[in-house]
Amino acid sequence: MMWFSSDNAGPAAPEIMDAMVKANGMYSAAYGADPIMDRVRDRIRDLFEAPEAAVYLVATGTAANSLALATLVQPWQTVYCHRNAHIEEDECAAPEFYTGGAKLTLLDGKDAKITPSSLQHAIDFTGRAGVHNVQKGALSITNTTENGTVYTLDEIRALTSIARAAEIPVHLDGARFTNALVSLGCTPAEMTWKSGIDVVSFGGTKNGLVGVEAVILFDPARAWEFELRRKRGGHLFSKHRYLSAQMEAYLTNDLWLDMARKANAMAARLSAGILALPEARLDHPTEANIVFASWPRKGHKAAQEAGAHYYFWPFDQSLDGPDDELLSARLVCNWSTTEAEVDNFLKTIAG
Amino acid sequence: MMWFSSDNAGPAAPEIMDAMVKANGMYSAAYGADPIMDRVRDRIRDLFEAPEAAVYLVATGTAANSLALATLVQPWQTVYCHRNAHIEEDECAAPEFYTGGAKLTLLDGKDAKITPSSLQHAIDFTGRAGVHNVQKGALSITNTTENGTVYTLDEIRALTSIARAAEIPVHLDGARFTNALVSLGCTPAEMTWKSGIDVVSFGGTKNGLVGVEAVILFDPARAWEFELRRKRGGHLFSKHRYLSAQMEAYLTNDLWLDMARKANAMAARLSAGILALPEARLDHPTEANIVFASWPRKGHKAAQEAGAHYYFWPFDQSLDGPDDELLSARLVCNWSTTEAEVDNFLKTIAG
Amino acid sequence: MMWFSSDNAGPAAPEIMDAMVKANGMYSAAYGADPIMDRVRDRIRDLFEAPEAAVYLVATGTAANSLALATLVQPWQTVYCHRNAHIEEDECAAPEFYTGGAKLTLLDGKDAKITPSSLQHAIDFTGRAGVHNVQKGALSITNTTENGTVYTLDEIRALTSIARAAEIPVHLDGARFTNALVSLGCTPAEMTWKSGIDVVSFGGTKNGLVGVEAVILFDPARAWEFELRRKRGGHLFSKHRYLSAQMEAYLTNDLWLDMARKANAMAARLSAGILALPEARLDHPTEANIVFASWPRKGHKAAQEAGAHYYFWPFDQSLDGPDDELLSARLVCNWSTTEAEVDNFLKTIAG
Amino acid sequence: MMWFSSDNAGPAAPEIMDAMVKANGMYSAAYGADPIMDRVRDRIRDLFEAPEAAVYLVATGTAANSLALATLVQPWQTVYCHRNAHIEEDECAAPEFYTGGAKLTLLDGKDAKITPSSLQHAIDFTGRAGVHNVQKGALSITNTTENGTVYTLDEIRALTSIARAAEIPVHLDGARFTNALVSLGCTPAEMTWKSGIDVVSFGGTKNGLVGVEAVILFDPARAWEFELRRKRGGHLFSKHRYLSAQMEAYLTNDLWLDMARKANAMAARLSAGILALPEARLDHPTEANIVFASWPRKGHKAAQEAGAHYYFWPFDQSLDGPDDELLSARLVCNWSTTEAEVDNFLKTIAG
Repeated sequence: MMWFSSDNAGPAAPEIMDAMVKANGMYSAAYGADPIMDRVRDRIRDLFEAPEAAVYLVATGTAANSLALATLVQPWQTVYCHRNAHIEEDECAAPEFYTGGAKLTLLDGKDAKITPSSLQHAIDFTGRAGVHNVQKGALSITNTTENGTVYTLDEIRALTSIARAAEIPVHLDGARFTNALVSLGCTPAEMTWKSGIDVVSFGGTKNGLVGVEAVILFDPARAWEFELRRKRGGHLFSKHRYLSAQMEAYLTNDLWLDMARKANAMAARLSAGILALPEARLDHPTEANIVFASWPRKGHKAAQEAGAHYYFWPFDQSLDGPDDELLSARLVCNWSTTEAEVDNFLKTIAG
Repeated sequence: MMWFSSDNAGPAAPEIMDAMVKANGMYSAAYGADPIMDRVRDRIRDLFEAPEAAVYLVATGTAANSLALATLVQPWQTVYCHRNAHIEEDECAAPEFYTGGAKLTLLDGKDAKITPSSLQHAIDFTGRAGVHNVQKGALSITNTTENGTVYTLDEIRALTSIARAAEIPVHLDGARFTNALVSLGCTPAEMTWKSGIDVVSFGGTKNGLVGVEAVILFDPARAWEFELRRKRGGHLFSKHRYLSAQMEAYLTNDLWLDMARKANAMAARLSAGILALPEARLDHPTEANIVFASWPRKGHKAAQEAGAHYYFWPFDQSLDGPDDELLSARLVCNWSTTEAEVDNFLKTIAG
Repeated sequence: MMWFSSDNAGPAAPEIMDAMVKANGMYSAAYGADPIMDRVRDRIRDLFEAPEAAVYLVATGTAANSLALATLVQPWQTVYCHRNAHIEEDECAAPEFYTGGAKLTLLDGKDAKITPSSLQHAIDFTGRAGVHNVQKGALSITNTTENGTVYTLDEIRALTSIARAAEIPVHLDGARFTNALVSLGCTPAEMTWKSGIDVVSFGGTKNGLVGVEAVILFDPARAWEFELRRKRGGHLFSKHRYLSAQMEAYLTNDLWLDMARKANAMAARLSAGILALPEARLDHPTEANIVFASWPRKGHKAAQEAGAHYYFWPFDQSLDGPDDELLSARLVCNWSTTEAEVDNFLKTIAG
Repeated sequence: MMWFSSDNAGPAAPEIMDAMVKANGMYSAAYGADPIMDRVRDRIRDLFEAPEAAVYLVATGTAANSLALATLVQPWQTVYCHRNAHIEEDECAAPEFYTGGAKLTLLDGKDAKITPSSLQHAIDFTGRAGVHNVQKGALSITNTTENGTVYTLDEIRALTSIARAAEIPVHLDGARFTNALVSLGCTPAEMTWKSGIDVVSFGGTKNGLVGVEAVILFDPARAWEFELRRKRGGHLFSKHRYLSAQMEAYLTNDLWLDMARKANAMAARLSAGILALPEARLDHPTEANIVFASWPRKGHKAAQEAGAHYYFWPFDQSLDGPDDELLSARLVCNWSTTEAEVDNFLKTIAG
């Protein structure tokens, strides 16, 4: 089995399933009033050194991002993000839907990282004609990025300080938060509010959960608004305890960190292995659990014949053509990826 | 333990948890392309005798209802529903959000059942001034109703034939679909498309699932629109297989029917028991798994002291007052409610 | 000529046309930066004794009401209004569109006036189940009402004090503001902010303008938001000076008051004349420029044959039937309605 | 007087004011049922050789564009437009508001003209990941463009044929329609439906009207939807006859063509005059009524001192700096611009 199509293709950790089964053994208050959620809230506040933070659970990353952004921006404002951001490319305009028609202003930067100058330039340009233009709304960055790279703390701060000067809040799309965290080797607080982040989509689904993302608002001023938006979006679960149980198990005994470390380690092994092939190259640095790499078509043919799952990146490449032409691919590892699986894949594409 | 606050307070069936754990033992394509969903789609089409139906899974009833309605009505139209419908009273204007600002026209009728005359009158009144008014959109009925009553097939048809004459589609909020189905003793097809229903929210969460509702569109013409709306609303699950697995187990070996029958039987036992108390009365007929009943305040005091969970209905009643005054309550049974629990409750309130 | 279909069927005052022509003789800054608007703003602040008020012009009543309400309420809130209010019945859900999907909670009361008890009851009921319900948003009252009646200052204050206690703002739909004002014989300030009104749609179109309504926000805190919403709704005019010029002429030499007085006087004459007919009756008191009255069908037949313009109210009445049966009608006078026209109509229906 | 800030700074033609005054001499049915509108509809159908077209009037360009686009695209689709299009840069996200949150996909091209390859590339990229992406919606082009250039018929057809192949409709933002028309010397039909345009915003406000734009839908299938959207947006005028009267006068005796010819001729004179100055240059070709040109700072200083009105383009240039540095400006002529005014300006900047 060689599944590298996405981290959402893999299973949940056994500890997660156990926790759900255990949560099933009782009656409980609904809609987030379950006692497990009380513990989860405390645990997250603790981990993030943020005793006042508002903490909510939803089941999808699109919900987490869209609800967070809708709470931060008005319909006549714009969200600055990288032009390859998930909120721009992969959510079917959910942010536009949840915000009531705000814009996304697309920024440039190598390896899916926004450059400070592109952000500054876009902010300077916004609202130059007053009421005729959309207004400055929020900055949204993604860490781990869509290209599998990781913003350093300095890089984050370079962006958030521009946002701060422009008096706009900052959202972090952390669908792969933990992969970035263990890559950076810093604390959750350092990666977020200590570096200028106001609201976090703290993903779990791609890192071994069945389906849970936390939204953390370090400033609880708009917590009630968030709750109303969550309900109104159909994202408040009656049997919320099954979300709580997953998140509790996730944050117990460093399970979340261990799973991210395993995924990152497998990506590093895969990346190094590909790079060792003749004529292969990396398309983006491998800094978390995703590898973007190119190798000759014949290696892709062999992989497809062997039943390997992964995507060409960009999509519009073909197996038809000269054997030695390079084709680009995205390969995603998750906590359950094994060394044997990686090595088998490497052997396959080496021919 | 005496939990009658809601059917969402109870546990999921063990079969459901087993199915989720089993689904965890594999890699899978994401976003609804899992093989379990293929089987679920076939099973639902079979059960509903609707080989062309489009079938989708979401995780909350509000999502199911709102996405269904948004697919049926335009922003300048209105949805006819009972004034106590869940879509009006308990979804924080989610239908208005998902439809882009459509209206709900509130209809009257005893026991939360819309009367044909109130529907006909509202339809006749709609759009009388042309472009100045909202236009006819859709009819939405709820079965089991919010008052625990069940529309008969004749009652459903009396409403849907009016809708048909007005050329508007009909949505069924079936959050408690199966409780109504076993109460009526008919087939799913009879309760739906054979009686004029176009789209169904087929609930599972209140009947023993962790959190899954199916949306069934008998006419697949707008299936792709539904898929886009689901994604855009953040309701398309990457690890969709855990929703599929629940629904598959639910529909296996009559589990869904058995659970609904148990819940209904416990409600019947509870209802009969209360009615046997001196001075007690039913506020609505008990036809599914919910009891609306009134008994003297002293019985309520005893229940609260014993730790029973249930709601006053309406909310604004108080334990303070004369012992013999009648107070009204809503009591909901679920598949896991036991005879002992019911009998214990009856004994408690009998004083 | 007997036109009583609506006050919008009549011409604009010659002074208004003259002002537009005069405004045409110059170049001007666009989008509300014209010097006439500076004078209009000062004049309205003066008239309303509100030196801080934000004042904006739009061209339709629906725009004025919807933009005002959108500035006052959030998408998850509700607007309390009479069930016959223009915002409910005649704007094709424009308030729902502009607010992003807020609800309207419909209140009862004779002669299109909300009763304090219906308002209080609705407010008490709102949000009783927390996040599951829409929340309290704003109160919107209409003066002159849709039934041609006029709230007294005491009646306004009875409602606004309930709103104040519930901490929600109050909007006044003043499409026929001046007709109510001269009927009450009070000052604009007394009819508005001194009686608890926060935002006014100050109508001009129905009282002799080509098409201008002012929106007055007594608290300018959300003025910038209003400006952005106006632009985003397509209601900011580039050649704004033609709106300003109308409003300036309207408020010069008591033209606005004179036109409303004439319209009201003609309605009074019409009302008295109808009441004097055998078997005729008023359906609502005539307190401004609209008459709701019933008289025998034969009188209606004669009127229709003579080419009179007016609406049956309700619409679904017919000229077919017994001659002596009473049919109900709405008759609207405007500043240009003449005594001869009224008397001719009375003579016609008297047969 | 030297007003070149915008074509909306100038007066309306006397014929327009006369028509409004004349329309004032009568009672009329409201909301577009006035007899003048019947004639306007016929006249526009005739001019455009489109006997089936649906024709509507609104008062602002933002309303015309947004309502047209909302009728063409779904909320989960995208509108392809130039990155400098008015709908992107100058409408405060009105298209996003009216469409319910659709996207705008920004295309490149010199002189504000979309290149076929940028359109084709964007279309090919759209929806590549299925439900996760926004879908193809509509193409919107602007003629006269924001840079004062004019698409030739061949250029229009190159774009619309790509749209046709992609099965998406085409909108024309014709805020300066007539300036382009007389520049091309073709018929309205040739510039629109014969070249693949489906819906036109046919502007009048910038070309001598007080404030009227027509929306023309060559395919009337969605006419009723447009009417509901117009009402719901607050853009249906009760005293609609004043809009009709303007449009009727506009299209009588070639007034519209004459005004556009005059404006274009003055721009040509201005453009030639500037180009004749030492060191001056055009920033975009002058093909209609707008000149984009650069000349030395000292000439700008002289113009500002003389009270000339125009904008630096881009905005962020300053009068402070070396006298001989080139600064860029936008200069707009309208029907009332005189040769004397142009010559005086040229003399002023020549120093």
